[in-house]
Amino acid sequence: MPSLILSVDAMGGDAAPQVVLDGLQVFAARRPEITFLVHGRAEELTAGIEARGLSERCQIMHHEDVVSMSDKPSTAMRRAKGTSMWGAVQSVKSGEAGAAVSAGNTGALMAFSMLALRKMEGVHRPAMTALWPNAKGRAIVLDVGANLDADCDQLVTFAIMGEAYARAVTGKTKPTIGLLNIGSEEGKGRDTLKLAAERLRNPALGLDFKGYVEGNDIALGVVDVVVTDGFTGNVALKTAEGTARLVGVYLREAFSSGLASRLGAILASPGLKRLRAKMDPSQANGGVLLGLNGVVVKSHGGADAEGYATALALAADLAGSRYMEEVASGLARASVEDDDVSEAAQ
Amino acid sequence: MPSLILSVDAMGGDAAPQVVLDGLQVFAARRPEITFLVHGRAEELTAGIEARGLSERCQIMHHEDVVSMSDKPSTAMRRAKGTSMWGAVQSVKSGEAGAAVSAGNTGALMAFSMLALRKMEGVHRPAMTALWPNAKGRAIVLDVGANLDADCDQLVTFAIMGEAYARAVTGKTKPTIGLLNIGSEEGKGRDTLKLAAERLRNPALGLDFKGYVEGNDIALGVVDVVVTDGFTGNVALKTAEGTARLVGVYLREAFSSGLASRLGAILASPGLKRLRAKMDPSQANGGVLLGLNGVVVKSHGGADAEGYATALALAADLAGSRYMEEVASGLARASVEDDDVSEAAQ
Repeated sequence: MPSLILSVDAMGGDAAPQVVLDGLQVFAARRPEITFLVHGRAEELTAGIEARGLSERCQIMHHEDVVSMSDKPSTAMRRAKGTSMWGAVQSVKSGEAGAAVSAGNTGALMAFSMLALRKMEGVHRPAMTALWPNAKGRAIVLDVGANLDADCDQLVTFAIMGEAYARAVTGKTKPTIGLLNIGSEEGKGRDTLKLAAERLRNPALGLDFKGYVEGNDIALGVVDVVVTDGFTGNVALKTAEGTARLVGVYLREAFSSGLASRLGAILASPGLKRLRAKMDPSQANGGVLLGLNGVVVKSHGGADAEGYATALALAADLAGSRYMEEVASGLARASVEDDDVSEAAQ
Repeated sequence: MPSLILSVDAMGGDAAPQVVLDGLQVFAARRPEITFLVHGRAEELTAGIEARGLSERCQIMHHEDVVSMSDKPSTAMRRAKGTSMWGAVQSVKSGEAGAAVSAGNTGALMAFSMLALRKMEGVHRPAMTALWPNAKGRAIVLDVGANLDADCDQLVTFAIMGEAYARAVTGKTKPTIGLLNIGSEEGKGRDTLKLAAERLRNPALGLDFKGYVEGNDIALGVVDVVVTDGFTGNVALKTAEGTARLVGVYLREAFSSGLASRLGAILASPGLKRLRAKMDPSQANGGVLLGLNGVVVKSHGGADAEGYATALALAADLAGSRYMEEVASGLARASVEDDDVSEAAQ
């Protein structure tokens, strides 16, 4: 069995490279078969990699430059070459690595990935995914911001890509799919959604499409894959994050108000620890820009070591899966089905 | 001072008329100057009103029919006359009541309100509001589903209406306004939003416009009024509700796992009680279809007595405010500013 190699942008993220190396250490212990190409400034990486006992598993790829978190994608593009982020993506393009991970500037990473890896045949618009914790584990939501809008074709493509992705990273053999709308009844919502729902229901596509879902269905876990346009998906994701954070603030207030409450918190700590684990954003870390000829995972810039390890696990699961072939055959089925529709319309 | 009269659809809601009458009782005790026109089946209402000691404060308006929660708006429209919901709205139209409240079928209530009250001059699309609990109290979000989309003019109208509404119900003299987008930097997002932002920045409008806000800013309380199209607003609202509910489920699990956790919950109960109060959906109950010649408040169908009382308080605050005049003068300013823009473009 050929062992998997992952490419890592060690300089991307709020606390890079320390947290990146910490995440590598956590993940490397769990997956002993995987080795790493670590992109960044050699002088900032060598000692840290040695100290973590990872010298045997990591090959340092030196790059002098770093994309800053505040660079606009256009600025980053002009000086892409020579940066650790560019190097990490190039390792995927060249085939040296099975997938890349970066916690750096999102816009720049999307731009670099598009430029280096190009879109898969049949994909007009790549889509960004989010892992979304829900009552049954976690769902995939896409697009969460790679695009501002999505037409019917694009929504169908998102569904095909999201389903293959969910199979690779959740282990479900037949993930269910829902289309995000403002009502679950047929006939509700924008025309684009009605057209997309009609196409997704076509058995020729081979998808387990459950129809429309509403905002509250995401957390309930009604479906495994929630398909929407990038504007709506981004607003929904950030709204959920804001809501969870607000409840967290309320919770801390509740347990710091008086001696009895504090004692209660100590007694209830095993349950509260589980609650924290369930709400832990590190379990949901990692977005993937689907639809490119290669896998690049975006870690949250503020992710901790555990979160970074989650992003690395996503990259490994995708790289070791049949995701690319499945998307290609799904898109081929959609294109045949599309021709049938056009012929029938003539 | 003329006392205020509110019109109530006693038959609308999941547990009507009992919960409606319970809510009336809670609210009537808080606002002794207000009296009520109670629309519904007299034989189902008389005893309940007497039992709650409200006979002096309530006048029963008999209607034989009831709009069911599952009726489509078109079905409800055909048999509108003779229903308690229609009667409740008509009392506003005739001027007998200052505002109406119903916990019945949302689609039917919007249709009846539009038909009976008509749109205010200058309003092309009414917008539905939500009260949104946040770190600083509560914000107003609109539109949360009266429309599927909103163009630039409509977003500007929503901002004007939302600001006047926020002043009436939150007591703030100069509510701040944000436009929901997927990034807070200028130049981000859809063209419609860029155009609307430009117009909202015009000092002639007299609004305290803070620019773009993102999904997570709603719960943070960054602004008092969040303006968006009905599709995005509805998805965001339901996503937040789903997230809060999921965290609630996790919390209950955390406190029922083992004896120590349960004891901890008892000790921490004052803090937890405050937490529950903050997350209590009854505090956020009540949506208003803004932009009509009259005030109709939609209570959640499943609201409890306290929630229904919140909706009644909204109706009273609006009816007793200068909201209608303020919207009219705001729209007039927007229309002048609009002419200026057209002239400048010529």
